Amino acid sequence: VFTVEWDVSQAEKAGYPHFMLKEIEEQPRALADTLNPRVKDGEINFDEIGIDDAMLAGIRKITIIACGTAYHASYVGKYIIERFARVPVEVEIASEFRYKNPIIDQDNFVIVVSQSGETADTIAALREAKSRGAFVLAIANVVGSTIAREADKVLYTRAGLEIAVASTKAYTTQLMALYMFALKLAYAKGGITKEEYHTYVAELQKVPENAEKVIQNKELLQKFAYEHFTEHSVFYIGRGLDYAMAMEGSLKLKEISYIHSEAYAGGELKHGTIALVEEGTLVVAVLTQGDLIEKCLSNVKEVTSRGAVVMVVTQEKYQDLVKDVADKIVTVPDAIDFEATITSIIPMQIFAYYMSVQKGCDVDKPRNLAKSVTVE
Amino acid sequence: VFTVEWDVSQAEKAGYPHFMLKEIEEQPRALADTLNPRVKDGEINFDEIGIDDAMLAGIRKITIIACGTAYHASYVGKYIIERFARVPVEVEIASEFRYKNPIIDQDNFVIVVSQSGETADTIAALREAKSRGAFVLAIANVVGSTIAREADKVLYTRAGLEIAVASTKAYTTQLMALYMFALKLAYAKGGITKEEYHTYVAELQKVPENAEKVIQNKELLQKFAYEHFTEHSVFYIGRGLDYAMAMEGSLKLKEISYIHSEAYAGGELKHGTIALVEEGTLVVAVLTQGDLIEKCLSNVKEVTSRGAVVMVVTQEKYQDLVKDVADKIVTVPDAIDFEATITSIIPMQIFAYYMSVQKGCDVDKPRNLAKSVTVE
Repeated sequence: VFTVEWDVSQAEKAGYPHFMLKEIEEQPRALADTLNPRVKDGEINFDEIGIDDAMLAGIRKITIIACGTAYHASYVGKYIIERFARVPVEVEIASEFRYKNPIIDQDNFVIVVSQSGETADTIAALREAKSRGAFVLAIANVVGSTIAREADKVLYTRAGLEIAVASTKAYTTQLMALYMFALKLAYAKGGITKEEYHTYVAELQKVPENAEKVIQNKELLQKFAYEHFTEHSVFYIGRGLDYAMAMEGSLKLKEISYIHSEAYAGGELKHGTIALVEEGTLVVAVLTQGDLIEKCLSNVKEVTSRGAVVMVVTQEKYQDLVKDVADKIVTVPDAIDFEATITSIIPMQIFAYYMSVQKGCDVDKPRNLAKSVTVE
Repeated sequence: VFTVEWDVSQAEKAGYPHFMLKEIEEQPRALADTLNPRVKDGEINFDEIGIDDAMLAGIRKITIIACGTAYHASYVGKYIIERFARVPVEVEIASEFRYKNPIIDQDNFVIVVSQSGETADTIAALREAKSRGAFVLAIANVVGSTIAREADKVLYTRAGLEIAVASTKAYTTQLMALYMFALKLAYAKGGITKEEYHTYVAELQKVPENAEKVIQNKELLQKFAYEHFTEHSVFYIGRGLDYAMAMEGSLKLKEISYIHSEAYAGGELKHGTIALVEEGTLVVAVLTQGDLIEKCLSNVKEVTSRGAVVMVVTQEKYQDLVKDVADKIVTVPDAIDFEATITSIIPMQIFAYYMSVQKGCDVDKPRNLAKSVTVE
């Protein structure tokens, strides 16, 4: 018998109209709970988990396996691990990985990501990886879940109970966990200096208050949703980390508002999808990464020249760069670019939420979907 | 000055209403031209290209870089190389690869895939890979193009001039080139026996006549298109190799008919997209791979239970397995499963073609798109 240490009040809406909005607003707390207890002397401490720097230094290749929202979080993990730790990372959809006779052995460090810890395909993938000798770290939210029990080590997100089918705080805490892991790994592998390490960790500690500021700005997103809830097709674009955020932003909208939205890497638009853009099509452009803004702006101009209405998600410091092409701008507080992702998803969560409310959908229990996919 | 050896008659429609249909019907010839001259004594011969088995035996990791349709072909390449040669393959979108400080060095064997050989992002990615010491093989269609000139070696597809913006024969000949490379590599690495090698090559040689049979069946697809051209959203699903084909089938429909279509790995549907499926939604299920049909049928049943209309693409031998869930069935001639992919895309090309015709779109020159994306 496992005891789950969750406050019963989390199972109640506490005055909120929907669990989803409550869970969106719980993110500052959830992010702080996931990060703060694991920071010691300005560095990430995994003593509790049983992973030390010597072990991390030996990692040569990583495979991250997940489904749905957790799969999108895994893409962010790949990007930051490769960039800072210089360890190659493969991201796999669990339902694909398990049936493809994967090239995996004891040299692979495998990370499985699942909120519930009961996702059937992810459990099967974990077992497949273990049977081939790989070491498996789970990033899970539910204590004592199957994935948490069967993995070699567990890094728990501390999102608390998530009830809305559309994941919000579980996703951002998965991101936080992956950032913590990536920074610790990068330092252990010599990819970042001690000074950089401390700077990046200190910056992570600002994420909860930055998230709070985004949430306070929700009326703007409610207004945008009111103007757009009748859309049939919406596109989300971005490059690099912004592309990973676009994927998750698009999924949020799709799953609760039933609007057909799709995410594209900015540079891929011209290879087909731009044919769908016509006068008035809504395009959400994620432009938080300074080194890629100029490149992605050229994609934004391609869609605006076809009449698209563009909503830009950016950092405050980049507002001036994007204001000429944006019909609507949502900003998140300034951060070191690669750490601006965690807050940048929140406006897209809120936008999706109000789109769903405005359409009169069942926000917390969208049709056809279950909270944990415990069947194949 | 490079001389391009193409017959001028290829630049004319020769009685066809559109270049796209002409090019679809040229596929048996294009596939034979790409394969046959490189088969000697039942094996793939790359003497002309300057790649021998000793060189292939030394390959330890592969990165395939491309955009759009060529990116979808690259996914098939990844799947068959990993399965038979057991060499890990990373597939990268060129516009993402070039800006991410990729982990790549002289240990990487890089393959760039581009019909025109002038795709701007792919050229830049090629240069990035070469500057880091990687060996680059190009799979290109246009002789003397920038990519063909700058790569270390070139494996030309012999599709001939492709004029329609939506790629058909260039895509299937890219698949053929990747199969040839994968089988040769697999044999060089000891992943398949001599007998298997000969069997698989002989089976590849049947692809042109199988493609011809699919084309002869086009009236059926014209009829299906007539029944579905008013759709707003269409979903393509599959697992493994069938997922890669679903991606390309979806792109074909999207780019020429302006219908918002999207491909999903079967197992991922339940993680969000199934919320979009309602009474009458068209779902194209690609079910050609025997070992995955049962698993994907469970996903098909999920959508049919929500009222979806399902069109199945399968091999003749699997018709009985799928007939209970399919509203419409299109078959391709029986083949060794992993080689059924090349013919399986053709019904989806033809379906997209007739959907576009029926909607009155400009089939050969869809709005907003250019044949070669020579800008970023």
